[in-house]
Amino acid sequence: MKLDVTAGGVYVIAPTPFHPDGRVDDASLDRMTDFFLGEARCDGMTILGVMGEAPKLDGAESLALSRRIIGRAGAAGIIVGVTAPGFAAMRALAQGVMQAGAAGVMIAPPSHLRTDDAVVAYFHQAVEAIGPDIPWVLQDYPQLFQVQMTPAVIRRIVMDLPSCVMLKHEDWPGLEKISTLRRFQAEGSMRPLSILCGNGGIFLDFEMARGADGAMTGYAFPDMLAELVRLSKAGERDRAQDLFDAHLPMIRYELQPGPGLAVRKYVLMRRGIIASDAQRRPGTALTETARAEVEYLLARLARHDARARLQAPAKRSAA
Amino acid sequence: MKLDVTAGGVYVIAPTPFHPDGRVDDASLDRMTDFFLGEARCDGMTILGVMGEAPKLDGAESLALSRRIIGRAGAAGIIVGVTAPGFAAMRALAQGVMQAGAAGVMIAPPSHLRTDDAVVAYFHQAVEAIGPDIPWVLQDYPQLFQVQMTPAVIRRIVMDLPSCVMLKHEDWPGLEKISTLRRFQAEGSMRPLSILCGNGGIFLDFEMARGADGAMTGYAFPDMLAELVRLSKAGERDRAQDLFDAHLPMIRYELQPGPGLAVRKYVLMRRGIIASDAQRRPGTALTETARAEVEYLLARLARHDARARLQAPAKRSAA
Amino acid sequence: MKLDVTAGGVYVIAPTPFHPDGRVDDASLDRMTDFFLGEARCDGMTILGVMGEAPKLDGAESLALSRRIIGRAGAAGIIVGVTAPGFAAMRALAQGVMQAGAAGVMIAPPSHLRTDDAVVAYFHQAVEAIGPDIPWVLQDYPQLFQVQMTPAVIRRIVMDLPSCVMLKHEDWPGLEKISTLRRFQAEGSMRPLSILCGNGGIFLDFEMARGADGAMTGYAFPDMLAELVRLSKAGERDRAQDLFDAHLPMIRYELQPGPGLAVRKYVLMRRGIIASDAQRRPGTALTETARAEVEYLLARLARHDARARLQAPAKRSAA
Amino acid sequence: MKLDVTAGGVYVIAPTPFHPDGRVDDASLDRMTDFFLGEARCDGMTILGVMGEAPKLDGAESLALSRRIIGRAGAAGIIVGVTAPGFAAMRALAQGVMQAGAAGVMIAPPSHLRTDDAVVAYFHQAVEAIGPDIPWVLQDYPQLFQVQMTPAVIRRIVMDLPSCVMLKHEDWPGLEKISTLRRFQAEGSMRPLSILCGNGGIFLDFEMARGADGAMTGYAFPDMLAELVRLSKAGERDRAQDLFDAHLPMIRYELQPGPGLAVRKYVLMRRGIIASDAQRRPGTALTETARAEVEYLLARLARHDARARLQAPAKRSAA
Repeated sequence: MKLDVTAGGVYVIAPTPFHPDGRVDDASLDRMTDFFLGEARCDGMTILGVMGEAPKLDGAESLALSRRIIGRAGAAGIIVGVTAPGFAAMRALAQGVMQAGAAGVMIAPPSHLRTDDAVVAYFHQAVEAIGPDIPWVLQDYPQLFQVQMTPAVIRRIVMDLPSCVMLKHEDWPGLEKISTLRRFQAEGSMRPLSILCGNGGIFLDFEMARGADGAMTGYAFPDMLAELVRLSKAGERDRAQDLFDAHLPMIRYELQPGPGLAVRKYVLMRRGIIASDAQRRPGTALTETARAEVEYLLARLARHDARARLQAPAKRSAA
Repeated sequence: MKLDVTAGGVYVIAPTPFHPDGRVDDASLDRMTDFFLGEARCDGMTILGVMGEAPKLDGAESLALSRRIIGRAGAAGIIVGVTAPGFAAMRALAQGVMQAGAAGVMIAPPSHLRTDDAVVAYFHQAVEAIGPDIPWVLQDYPQLFQVQMTPAVIRRIVMDLPSCVMLKHEDWPGLEKISTLRRFQAEGSMRPLSILCGNGGIFLDFEMARGADGAMTGYAFPDMLAELVRLSKAGERDRAQDLFDAHLPMIRYELQPGPGLAVRKYVLMRRGIIASDAQRRPGTALTETARAEVEYLLARLARHDARARLQAPAKRSAA
Repeated sequence: MKLDVTAGGVYVIAPTPFHPDGRVDDASLDRMTDFFLGEARCDGMTILGVMGEAPKLDGAESLALSRRIIGRAGAAGIIVGVTAPGFAAMRALAQGVMQAGAAGVMIAPPSHLRTDDAVVAYFHQAVEAIGPDIPWVLQDYPQLFQVQMTPAVIRRIVMDLPSCVMLKHEDWPGLEKISTLRRFQAEGSMRPLSILCGNGGIFLDFEMARGADGAMTGYAFPDMLAELVRLSKAGERDRAQDLFDAHLPMIRYELQPGPGLAVRKYVLMRRGIIASDAQRRPGTALTETARAEVEYLLARLARHDARARLQAPAKRSAA
Repeated sequence: MKLDVTAGGVYVIAPTPFHPDGRVDDASLDRMTDFFLGEARCDGMTILGVMGEAPKLDGAESLALSRRIIGRAGAAGIIVGVTAPGFAAMRALAQGVMQAGAAGVMIAPPSHLRTDDAVVAYFHQAVEAIGPDIPWVLQDYPQLFQVQMTPAVIRRIVMDLPSCVMLKHEDWPGLEKISTLRRFQAEGSMRPLSILCGNGGIFLDFEMARGADGAMTGYAFPDMLAELVRLSKAGERDRAQDLFDAHLPMIRYELQPGPGLAVRKYVLMRRGIIASDAQRRPGTALTETARAEVEYLLARLARHDARARLQAPAKRSAA
């Protein structure tokens, strides 16, 4: 079940659930996997990304976690982030997770790359390192990685390297970029490519209209993202937009670079999907004020979306 | 009428209206000034910022434009961006606009600064250059300027330099930063400071709750920002949030780094405030698809806010 | 006497002499100009660069200084740095100095540019701003400006824009870049281009062998640079290298990014070319220890090069 | 034999010798280790740094290589670079090599850090990750890592974290930084700290005079660096400077960021210390012209230093 260019829908960026003492919480991991791929109707999961706290896991933990999720995921596709400072580590992880049954891997460019040729050369080297048979996702996230790729550079990468099957699109702004890439396809200068969008979904309404195949992002209501994608594909634009608009205040709040993961884990905990919102050290905790803000947003969202109707939060002892 | 730490409300970041042939459009400039400071109930305007296309104006044009707006603004405060690659240019513009009647100036740190001491030293040098009597706004916008200032660094600047009277807060995420600065004030370690928020207003709902005094940002509905600030100050949280939520899809769309100014000018033109959405060369134009997206957002917004009920757009000839 | 692609030799990056109180020192300016273009046998001067403290001069001072030097320079070519944060300021300065008799201008890319297309587009816009008739120098200095241009990107700029007549080459490392550009010329894919090298001359020995036409850099012994270029062109490789090696300890010392200008002005003062090593505020002064280090290097250099045989320095009062 | 603040002399940054087919060349590794710590009279080696091609080694190879060198090094200290994108990988490598007998580890700050507090916090977290008992070297290399640390920030790190025993100093310019740190010690505000200098040794002459304890850098003649340090410590300034000046043209040539490692390996191969100058893919090879330049520099150096008197190079077949 390898990833290919027909992939679409929602591949949710998965957080890693921890116990408050820092151990991986396997029960939450299983429950979360079941929820994402079952009730939430996501098509796949992307694990070991930045928002999965991957750098805090050692090699053995990373592989064990990948195997556990892949084993539980059944037919759904699991994509594993293998971005690494060196090709040796990238190769080792990529080959390990593919043997464990992953659908594909995701690679982002290192932040020191400059010039179009240097970017293209890097991905040639990456494919040489992992081998030509592993399907991979090109991550285009200039805000985080400091590397900008024009549509023409993406086309060079896609045309040079057949194992690149998907773009994780999170350039910002990026609407015209999607339109340009789809135009390249339509005019025949680029082969078909799956495009899934990131940035917490904050442009997903228009990204779908521009030709995206879905989302690859983290948001505490991935079930909403999946519903939005289905509505968009069914041509139900206004219903999709109503749903999106109801969630936008929360999407925007969760998108904050620093506390975003803490918000996401808190809401997943409040929804009963994971047991604790703990991050492995070093992490960021929500302040009392921030938690109250999230609760306010949840309460308002609950007026429009039953998924946000939650029991009152448990009292916390002072942090 | 110099700027001081009691300033609040909305200081709208003003675009510069141009004729399609690139000349400054004085009639639109007057109409826009009247609208912002009259009907829209803004408290002031900030001109010659990045979103004012300031780098495309030469020195004489900058001064003429400043004088025209200041002359028309009456008692409202006009703040002028004087960020420059050298202190000689900064001094010349700052002194010129203050003589013309500006309320104050705004200064951002140059992007090469690193280390806390280098940041603090820079603002000492800037005040030495412009003189100690010109009130100035510290612009904290790490996403654009690549310079990060902790709350403690801002406190050092504020305590060292009495002529710093306001913070243009657009760190992202920044909610905890506002809380920390207000705590510094409460505990007596920092003198009072006006805090106006930027980032297109995308966090203004919570920023007001955290202790901000208002907004200094551009958005094609600054009248909404001013109303939101008034509702927040009156304690009408839910009404403020309803208003905010209705505008959030458009706020988010206008915040896009590249086409954002084109969106803003287009909507201001559609509202009849400026005659043309032209940018002086080199500029960015909206595509047909983007204009349709803006119209879709306007139509949806009009269901909640009468200010967005506009006549159908004029037909354009092909770009 | 406009700059063209046949230019070669040494265009010395000129500092701006100040009196200790911060005023421009016109007498030193004249003496320095006479020395550089006379006794030192340089072919031209480049003024208003970063090392000329240009950002500390206001518009009127910049123009006055340019006129004074151009007036005194006679037939030698004066190149003026016109890099600016906006095209309006670039145009104003470029047209002003060309009217005053400058040979050409120099333009560096702004540090936020990424992607090959963005770099090329920027220079198109710059030429549109200043007009197609002003000969200009492309400054390629990635260490300072954070913009990297491959040889192929430089070729695109050169072939697109006929008024680009010279490359100020200071990529580091850059030896292969010179070879590649000269190969482009030899194979006919790029028109001829003057290449002058920077980086304080620290690779000038090999840069000449790779095909450079000379140097455009600042060093307190530009007479040595000019002699080195003459020796290289005459095929006297070993004599050129002996001369270079004798100066290399000082070249290396002067190349330090922070104190470099202070070293350069100090040695020019010690040579009697300018009256004071003062920098306009904010500037960097040499510590006592650093001055002693420079004197030590001068004394050692004097064993090989009579130009470094100077009288003992005057006593300084404590800084 | 753990590293402590009394360490001095030369800790040479070791390259990793490869066979032309990409396998680690153990025989060359042994010969190189013997040479560095024997005939060349270095005090230690630093391995698995950027110039050791560490990112191209997988975890097993890294540990095997570390063990081989440590086993052969005897009493000399081996320092291992453990900089990693996550604390889990840093901890695993640090604990692994210390168990194998390393003297200490080296840690550089990640390039995204901004603000003094963020830098200090990072090293607290790193020590929490590896444990408080492993002696470590703080790498201060702003040109590569984009993080600037003032002397006061270094002092905070040193005073907060007792296991920090050494500074790898390669800020540029950095002479005043050494003086300031030694002044901190002299005035009692900072505890003693070993300071070894990098940057290919290009300022080692003056760095020793400013108070450095030696060098931690790579240069194809580490025996010269060791001799220079001994001469400096013996007060033989002019002899030290004569030696340094003779090598400076080569030091400067080898310092080039891109081809520098290729130069270093080529010269080590020419000296018979390693069998091949091959880099594991992806690597940079010297062009024919560059090899000729290196040979020219070697021939000139041989007039002053017998260590550079080498047999003529073997003919290469075309690359």
